[in-house]
Amino acid sequence: MDYYSKQISKLIEELSSLPGIGSKSAQRLAFHILNMPEDRVEKLADTIVDARHNIRYCKTCCTLTDAEECPICRNPSRNHRMIMVVENTRDLAAYEKTGKYDGVYHVLHGAISPMLGIGPGDIRLKELIKRLEGDVDEVIIATNSSLEGETTAMYISKLIKPTGIRVSRIASGVPVGGDLEYIDEVTLLRALEGRVEL
Amino acid sequence: MDYYSKQISKLIEELSSLPGIGSKSAQRLAFHILNMPEDRVEKLADTIVDARHNIRYCKTCCTLTDAEECPICRNPSRNHRMIMVVENTRDLAAYEKTGKYDGVYHVLHGAISPMLGIGPGDIRLKELIKRLEGDVDEVIIATNSSLEGETTAMYISKLIKPTGIRVSRIASGVPVGGDLEYIDEVTLLRALEGRVEL
Repeated sequence: MDYYSKQISKLIEELSSLPGIGSKSAQRLAFHILNMPEDRVEKLADTIVDARHNIRYCKTCCTLTDAEECPICRNPSRNHRMIMVVENTRDLAAYEKTGKYDGVYHVLHGAISPMLGIGPGDIRLKELIKRLEGDVDEVIIATNSSLEGETTAMYISKLIKPTGIRVSRIASGVPVGGDLEYIDEVTLLRALEGRVEL
Repeated sequence: MDYYSKQISKLIEELSSLPGIGSKSAQRLAFHILNMPEDRVEKLADTIVDARHNIRYCKTCCTLTDAEECPICRNPSRNHRMIMVVENTRDLAAYEKTGKYDGVYHVLHGAISPMLGIGPGDIRLKELIKRLEGDVDEVIIATNSSLEGETTAMYISKLIKPTGIRVSRIASGVPVGGDLEYIDEVTLLRALEGRVEL
């Protein structure tokens, strides 16, 4: 790409390395940025660095947040005896958007995948098991309905059943193979209501 | 978006303000960035700020570059008596990619649009006219084949004709209404070869 000056090429290259951004989009983005006022560009860069710098895992539910404990875990009006297990923070946000779930969450940051060599020790399962020592009525497993998500759900239910805590799985209103974060709120709610005990 | 912590929401908001990035893509990008190593994130932010900070207009052709004069204008093996007029730096890059054009460019940074209130004084036309005082054999107008591009082409040709310098327009091998930067190289070349004098 020597038809652009070095710094423009570098910018385009950096932007194309991001997910979902191809070479054309990267060029569009780059020239948009080059035409932005300089203070706006600095603000964008600061926001990126600050967010990354201040991010941490909630000490309770492991979601990505900027405090020791996330706002949901800190909220006394949530039902802390009901834990919904999700694969990542975006899936948590998908259920939060429905506004109808008042329990808390546990974010695994992945799913068990023998194909990719991701075992139970590679996701935040230890932390979940530890939480079950407290007062918990039910664990709702809301991993994706993909092969990995189902494997993870089975694994967790087998782990929890002996403790006597109720374990449920969101109903398969969620289309098989679908990614939780792209599903509409009505379907998400139906899946929650129709959950079946495992 | 209070289901994300404040800094994550801010990051998602900043990213969605970029062109072509909707709310879902912004979330994907944000979490990708939050999962990147911190030094990679800093490099990304630095590249963005550096590119914007060091960008300037070439003193000859007005393209976006990082030196006083761009590499094409500095290159003695290019034909400096042939000037191709384009709307923006991406269109220049589109013709550079063909590798077959050895003249130089002039970047207008826009096109005349009475609808949007963009007049001849709002694009880099003065700079083009000034260049014509030197030795110029031909001006090739390669603005887009949109209404604005055609208007601009007509305006420029009327301006240059009295000077006796040859003015041509790239052939309409370029589909009408199309955006130059998305067109394949063969079509771009055919349009160049079939250019007609105005």
